[in-house]
Amino acid sequence: MLTTNAAADNGVNVGALLGAREALAAAPEAARFRWRTTCSWVNGVHSRSTVEGFFGLGEERSHRVRSVLDADHPEVFAAEDNGPTPVEYVLVGLGACLTAGIAAVAQHRNIQLRSVSATVEGGMDIQGILGMDSDVRNGFNGIKVTYRIDADATPEEIRALVAQSQKRSAVFDVVTNPTNVTVEVA
Amino acid sequence: MLTTNAAADNGVNVGALLGAREALAAAPEAARFRWRTTCSWVNGVHSRSTVEGFFGLGEERSHRVRSVLDADHPEVFAAEDNGPTPVEYVLVGLGACLTAGIAAVAQHRNIQLRSVSATVEGGMDIQGILGMDSDVRNGFNGIKVTYRIDADATPEEIRALVAQSQKRSAVFDVVTNPTNVTVEVA
Repeated sequence: MLTTNAAADNGVNVGALLGAREALAAAPEAARFRWRTTCSWVNGVHSRSTVEGFFGLGEERSHRVRSVLDADHPEVFAAEDNGPTPVEYVLVGLGACLTAGIAAVAQHRNIQLRSVSATVEGGMDIQGILGMDSDVRNGFNGIKVTYRIDADATPEEIRALVAQSQKRSAVFDVVTNPTNVTVEVA
Repeated sequence: MLTTNAAADNGVNVGALLGAREALAAAPEAARFRWRTTCSWVNGVHSRSTVEGFFGLGEERSHRVRSVLDADHPEVFAAEDNGPTPVEYVLVGLGACLTAGIAAVAQHRNIQLRSVSATVEGGMDIQGILGMDSDVRNGFNGIKVTYRIDADATPEEIRALVAQSQKRSAVFDVVTNPTNVTVEVA
C-alpha cells in the first residue's frame, strides 16, 4: 500500500545545498570563505559597521544590499544608546544561525514548520569589563536559548531538529569553542 | 614650570564609568546583567531578531529604540540574501566592542582620537557547516582585525590602546574563549 506525504516547504532549497556539497567535494578550495565587516568609530562608544563584500567560491562577492549596523552602549552606561550593544549582536548571530539551521534540517527531514521563535539570553557580570575583579570574565557567564516551535512533527522530532541545528551551526561553534583572533594596527 | 595639556574629548564619560565602578563595588549584585534578543523565523534561512529589553542594575530596562535585525544567507547558498549572515553579526559585535574599548581607554589616557576604523575578517571552510568533513569546524578558522587609527599619540601608545581594549572586551572574550550555551524547546 502506497502512502503519500505532502512535501514540506520551508523555503529552503535543500537540492541546491546538496548540489553544492557535490561540487565542493570536487573542488574543496572553493569552500574557503572569508566573511567581513568594516567598523568605523562615530563618537564615544558608538560605532557604525557595514557588511557588504565577502569572498567565496573562489572569488570576491557582494551581498544584494549593504547593511549598516550601529552599535552603542545604553544610557545606564552614560552612553547615547544609538543601537544594540556589541554583545547583543553576538546573541542575534547565535539565534539567527540556530534558527536557519532548524529550517534547513526540517526541510531535509520533510517537516513542515509553521512558526519558530527563540529567546536568546546571555548573563554577564559587568565587574569583568569594568576591570573590578579579574576573576570575573568579560564575556557571558552563559547563554540560554529557548525555542517555541509549531510544526507538523512530534515533540521528539522537534527536539531532534534543534539538536541537529546546534551540531551544524557556525555561530554555536564560535561561541562554545575558542577561536584565534589577531588584532593589528596597520 | 607648569605644563598644560588640552583635555581629550572622545565623547566617553569616563567619570560616570568610574563612579559606576565605585557604586557597584558597594552593591556587586547590581553588576549582573542579562542581554537578550528574540529571533523569529521568517522563511527559508531568513530570520528577524529584535533587540529591546535587558536586565541590569537590579531591574528590567529598555533600549531607547527597538532594533530589528534581519539575517539570511547569500544567493550563492540558494537563499534570498535579505540581510547579513549570522556569522557576520558576530564580526560586527567583535569590531564594535573593540572599537568602543579603544575610545574608552583613549579617553581614560587623555588621548584625542581623530578617526578609528577596522576591517574584521573571519575565514571559514564551509565544508564544516555542510557536513562534508567532520574534521573541519563549523565556525571561523580564525579572525583578523586590522585597525587604522589617527590620534594624538605615538604609534606605541596607539598599539597599547588596542591591546588594552582586547583585555577588557566582552566580545573578544566570547570569541576567544568557550561559553556554555543551553538550547531548550519550551
